[in-house]
Amino acid sequence: MAGFGLRFVTNNPKDLVQRTAILGASGYTGAELIRLMRGHPAFDIKAITADRQAGKPMAAVFPHLGIDDLPPLVTLDEVDFGTIDMVFCALPHGTTQEVIARLPDSVRIVDLSADFRLTNKAVYEEWYGKPHAAPELQGQAVYGLTEFHRPALAMARLVANPGCYPTASLLPLLPLLRDRLIEPADIVIDAKSGVSGAGRGAKLGSLFAEVAEGLQPYGVGHHRHMPEIEQELSAAAGEPVRTSFTPHLVPMNRGMLATCYVSFKPGIDRQQLRASLVEAYGNEPFVHVLDEAVIPSTRQVRGTNHCFINVFDDRREGGAIITSVIDNLVKGASGQAIQNANVMLGLDEITGLTDGALIP
Amino acid sequence: MAGFGLRFVTNNPKDLVQRTAILGASGYTGAELIRLMRGHPAFDIKAITADRQAGKPMAAVFPHLGIDDLPPLVTLDEVDFGTIDMVFCALPHGTTQEVIARLPDSVRIVDLSADFRLTNKAVYEEWYGKPHAAPELQGQAVYGLTEFHRPALAMARLVANPGCYPTASLLPLLPLLRDRLIEPADIVIDAKSGVSGAGRGAKLGSLFAEVAEGLQPYGVGHHRHMPEIEQELSAAAGEPVRTSFTPHLVPMNRGMLATCYVSFKPGIDRQQLRASLVEAYGNEPFVHVLDEAVIPSTRQVRGTNHCFINVFDDRREGGAIITSVIDNLVKGASGQAIQNANVMLGLDEITGLTDGALIP
Amino acid sequence: MAGFGLRFVTNNPKDLVQRTAILGASGYTGAELIRLMRGHPAFDIKAITADRQAGKPMAAVFPHLGIDDLPPLVTLDEVDFGTIDMVFCALPHGTTQEVIARLPDSVRIVDLSADFRLTNKAVYEEWYGKPHAAPELQGQAVYGLTEFHRPALAMARLVANPGCYPTASLLPLLPLLRDRLIEPADIVIDAKSGVSGAGRGAKLGSLFAEVAEGLQPYGVGHHRHMPEIEQELSAAAGEPVRTSFTPHLVPMNRGMLATCYVSFKPGIDRQQLRASLVEAYGNEPFVHVLDEAVIPSTRQVRGTNHCFINVFDDRREGGAIITSVIDNLVKGASGQAIQNANVMLGLDEITGLTDGALIP
Amino acid sequence: MAGFGLRFVTNNPKDLVQRTAILGASGYTGAELIRLMRGHPAFDIKAITADRQAGKPMAAVFPHLGIDDLPPLVTLDEVDFGTIDMVFCALPHGTTQEVIARLPDSVRIVDLSADFRLTNKAVYEEWYGKPHAAPELQGQAVYGLTEFHRPALAMARLVANPGCYPTASLLPLLPLLRDRLIEPADIVIDAKSGVSGAGRGAKLGSLFAEVAEGLQPYGVGHHRHMPEIEQELSAAAGEPVRTSFTPHLVPMNRGMLATCYVSFKPGIDRQQLRASLVEAYGNEPFVHVLDEAVIPSTRQVRGTNHCFINVFDDRREGGAIITSVIDNLVKGASGQAIQNANVMLGLDEITGLTDGALIP
Repeated sequence: MAGFGLRFVTNNPKDLVQRTAILGASGYTGAELIRLMRGHPAFDIKAITADRQAGKPMAAVFPHLGIDDLPPLVTLDEVDFGTIDMVFCALPHGTTQEVIARLPDSVRIVDLSADFRLTNKAVYEEWYGKPHAAPELQGQAVYGLTEFHRPALAMARLVANPGCYPTASLLPLLPLLRDRLIEPADIVIDAKSGVSGAGRGAKLGSLFAEVAEGLQPYGVGHHRHMPEIEQELSAAAGEPVRTSFTPHLVPMNRGMLATCYVSFKPGIDRQQLRASLVEAYGNEPFVHVLDEAVIPSTRQVRGTNHCFINVFDDRREGGAIITSVIDNLVKGASGQAIQNANVMLGLDEITGLTDGALIP
Repeated sequence: MAGFGLRFVTNNPKDLVQRTAILGASGYTGAELIRLMRGHPAFDIKAITADRQAGKPMAAVFPHLGIDDLPPLVTLDEVDFGTIDMVFCALPHGTTQEVIARLPDSVRIVDLSADFRLTNKAVYEEWYGKPHAAPELQGQAVYGLTEFHRPALAMARLVANPGCYPTASLLPLLPLLRDRLIEPADIVIDAKSGVSGAGRGAKLGSLFAEVAEGLQPYGVGHHRHMPEIEQELSAAAGEPVRTSFTPHLVPMNRGMLATCYVSFKPGIDRQQLRASLVEAYGNEPFVHVLDEAVIPSTRQVRGTNHCFINVFDDRREGGAIITSVIDNLVKGASGQAIQNANVMLGLDEITGLTDGALIP
Repeated sequence: MAGFGLRFVTNNPKDLVQRTAILGASGYTGAELIRLMRGHPAFDIKAITADRQAGKPMAAVFPHLGIDDLPPLVTLDEVDFGTIDMVFCALPHGTTQEVIARLPDSVRIVDLSADFRLTNKAVYEEWYGKPHAAPELQGQAVYGLTEFHRPALAMARLVANPGCYPTASLLPLLPLLRDRLIEPADIVIDAKSGVSGAGRGAKLGSLFAEVAEGLQPYGVGHHRHMPEIEQELSAAAGEPVRTSFTPHLVPMNRGMLATCYVSFKPGIDRQQLRASLVEAYGNEPFVHVLDEAVIPSTRQVRGTNHCFINVFDDRREGGAIITSVIDNLVKGASGQAIQNANVMLGLDEITGLTDGALIP
Repeated sequence: MAGFGLRFVTNNPKDLVQRTAILGASGYTGAELIRLMRGHPAFDIKAITADRQAGKPMAAVFPHLGIDDLPPLVTLDEVDFGTIDMVFCALPHGTTQEVIARLPDSVRIVDLSADFRLTNKAVYEEWYGKPHAAPELQGQAVYGLTEFHRPALAMARLVANPGCYPTASLLPLLPLLRDRLIEPADIVIDAKSGVSGAGRGAKLGSLFAEVAEGLQPYGVGHHRHMPEIEQELSAAAGEPVRTSFTPHLVPMNRGMLATCYVSFKPGIDRQQLRASLVEAYGNEPFVHVLDEAVIPSTRQVRGTNHCFINVFDDRREGGAIITSVIDNLVKGASGQAIQNANVMLGLDEITGLTDGALIP
């Protein structure tokens, strides 16, 4: 297997098989977890839940999964969590915190919702309009942008898996802020997402005939991924950061692109940004700074856990343009969840995540 | 007919029928001119050219036009321009200037190429790598962003029809610079285009299987629409403006969105930007500032000559986000060409341009 | 205006302005009616209804219609039908019949639902699982496949506008059955539709992420358009016809293609089929038999009321392949509704329907 | 790993590592071979060729492959085939036969072109307009529809990998003809393909703006996959079969659907067809007859080597509708090539082919 560099592997996955439950398996991130676990030796899927589809075989929800040996869908209440080692939680924001609060201590959790991503209780309340229901867990949760939190992830019981927009935005920006190369007060993130990011709910705005052959921004000025992005940017910058962040809906199933416009700190130039990113990610299996002038495209990472980044000259003096691409359902959701679980278990981080991009 | 406000019409189109030639009729902008002329009473199509398709009926190039009474395709040399009143030139950049230089004085021209858009000879040479072949015409050409140059357009012999990216970018920004509301040195234009903007040439990068289900920036830092945008922004600002402009290729046929990030001049706020745009366009038939919080989407203007604009709060202090949408083939090319020709002829500007958006 | 041949026009639309109501204006066919009426001089839109959106301006439902002078959306009950001349009814199947039964006699109606298409009460009940609620109106309704029922349409009070699949299937087949050229017992219709045919309801199966980049048949063996197709085929053949009809869902907004496989009656060949179609449609403004070997494509008719047809050799002995394309929302719905209304009013049939195809 | 049933594995792939060359690696099937070999332990890629791209790294042609350790692209002449064990040939039709004729005997070959699929020299000449250049090899080649030719494939030096349309068409039909359940003279195959089937050549007809938002048949009556389909159908039926086969171009990257209309032999019904297919494929790892009424969709097999099939009642008496779906680039090309190579090497057939479907 090429492309992932040298890695130090602690444990053998076959010795560590986890009895695994996927909560919220009827959505896209749930199905994606199952897809990725197909090639993963350590996750033995014991329970999959979908309250409104309980009692059905998974084939009734996703016919392509009918050829896998999966247990039938059950309700959350039907799962005996005493027999489960690892939970992947793909439930909606808001309800997740109460579900996780009830899980026994013996269970380790990767939560794909937004419920445990914000560490500041007041910020959570401001953006979600109500107090957090499990504030003590909120404090314990480790933010799962894997490349930046490995030691804590290895010890974590509860991992707050990052959102797709934060992942695509933070990976190119964090090293630059940490290395004090760009002005924290002048960052524009123009982000674009495929439609699967809106989930599998039957909403007017997600209909084919409302999305195909069109393009639009949405949530301008008030998207809920903003505080998560700013929390992590601020931590890296060592000072509060407010960014301009605008998401756009693009007529494609998968893929996310962040086009970031940044201003140099005095005396800095584009090559120093590039060097910082190469330094940060040169040995990473999933984050790649492309060769000079090669333009990242979402298709290059489709179906994979990779993030491709490059840095370009801005025509304005004193700044640069940084673009990054991920698959919103993989590195932006289920793939990073597996990556985090691998770290939690001491497994080679790429386990189950070595598929090549599906092109075209 | 609704939606276009009061207009003062000078002439009756039936009294002014123009013997019309379309040069370069086998591309998308050529076909779009023909589509729009279907409902226009003043353009009598006498000649359509396509050097490599000469001798064929138009139905052989575009089967859907087989039901129209069109003359056969001919070469440029076969056209008797002495019998032509109005030329729409949809030829490639670079070759256009020589073709137009040879046209008789009796012909009025709307040129859809980039050849006469730049007024500065040195800038042209810098971006196109060679001196302009018809510099005296370059001086006479009127830049055809209709809403800003009507008096000159009415008198013009040669109109340089704006590019699609400049049209989408300039309409939201020019009033703000003219009214000194935003900082000229701090403008970011993140632009997104459908694939038809790349033309009908058989290029790898325009293949369905290279574009569909993907998204990418291109021409980062050096797109040829940049100097055109900066030329007009500078004129409005009264000082040289350099902008950050990044185009992106979106998997859709038509449509263009410019997401503009601007900084306020001291003491200015978002409402003043909005008021400036409403003031500029309140009586315009084709440029519309949407109601507060309504998000422009490219689908809203598909197939039409409209531009929809709105202004949003930026989360960063001191700035705003302005988005505008057009159909790149209509207001971004052939529709604006018709609009300009209407002005040249003293016709109601909306003649031939009243179709509603095709949704979905 | 080219492409529509000679036509005999009885009335001037400006003398016949109809106070018009559109019932069910928040769906795609409702919006399409409004789009097409923009260029039509005889329809003065007095009322638009959408029960769940009542009280809102149309711009809240379809922002692109915000630039038109439309009345606000109201409930059905709020319409004073005594002041209405013509109703276009775009309500769901099943509820339509009761709504129409309550309309005053002074109103003429084009109904886009399926409620009045089937003339046989037993067949209606078999396919819809309940008796028809307005059987006496069912008997009066004229089936609005315009090209075949003009005299009756001119006198009709209630027109049952055909479904999209029936329109695409019947136009190529009816002349061949009527002329006894093909075997009625051996017709296969493999039909393909864009997604807008499924309407604007927020259904899982219509989501972008469930449709894009995929293809599937649906309703195999039991689609509700079947009895409508067979009713008309049987009438043309003079004997009961059962066909094989399979619809497919294609990842595009608009467009419908019927690929029909037919067997010759003894002594018949492909040229006779072609001649029959040319004879039937040679003077039709909207139905066109393409030149030999030119392949109909849905894009050729996008946004138009045209139907393009061609006939091809089948490799099997004794049969041919006939393909036809329409825009499912125009000739397959709202365009044909306008065409029928034009006939009802004695107007030139092409009034309001002369837009060229939107390509690409 | 679930979903592939019990399998008897002869050899261990690590003991059989093949020094592998991919000829024609700059196209979609070449890239797909590389993607699938990523997870395959027996193929050690020693050479990749692309005459016009020779000298470049693969990243210059497919940036997403830049993270793999691949040799640089070379010309065919630069490959030392004496050091190669296994060749996957993804060259264009016509030129392939001469290339393969020059390979040393020590090399085993899976050829993805059409050059060796037709066994009858006259039929080849009829469809390709010239005599075959390597008729003796033509006689030795084994047709690689894996499920039907395993013993011969295990011994083969040269495998003619089937076309995508033949694969999608033959899998549902061969058992029914072999079991004498359907009439050989009355088969209609209405087939639909994603755009990648047209290859990566820069052709007008493959442009996004010529394909997206449209649908059309092509090659009606004379597609080159016809004789290949008829050759295999005839062999199964034991008599010459001529079918009606019509391909359609669908606006999606990948996926192929065959909708087959068949007539029963006397006394046969749909359940017997279904039983025949279940009998044929019940133990197959890649061909699956879905549960009753579950409709095959191309998305269910995207990125996988699976074929999903189901049988439906036809409304006409005496026939049925059978639909099958594959990914045209996997089971229709590169995946089946790997499957065949696995058989040639005595490996478990699913080696390298266990990825789940990418949905959405």
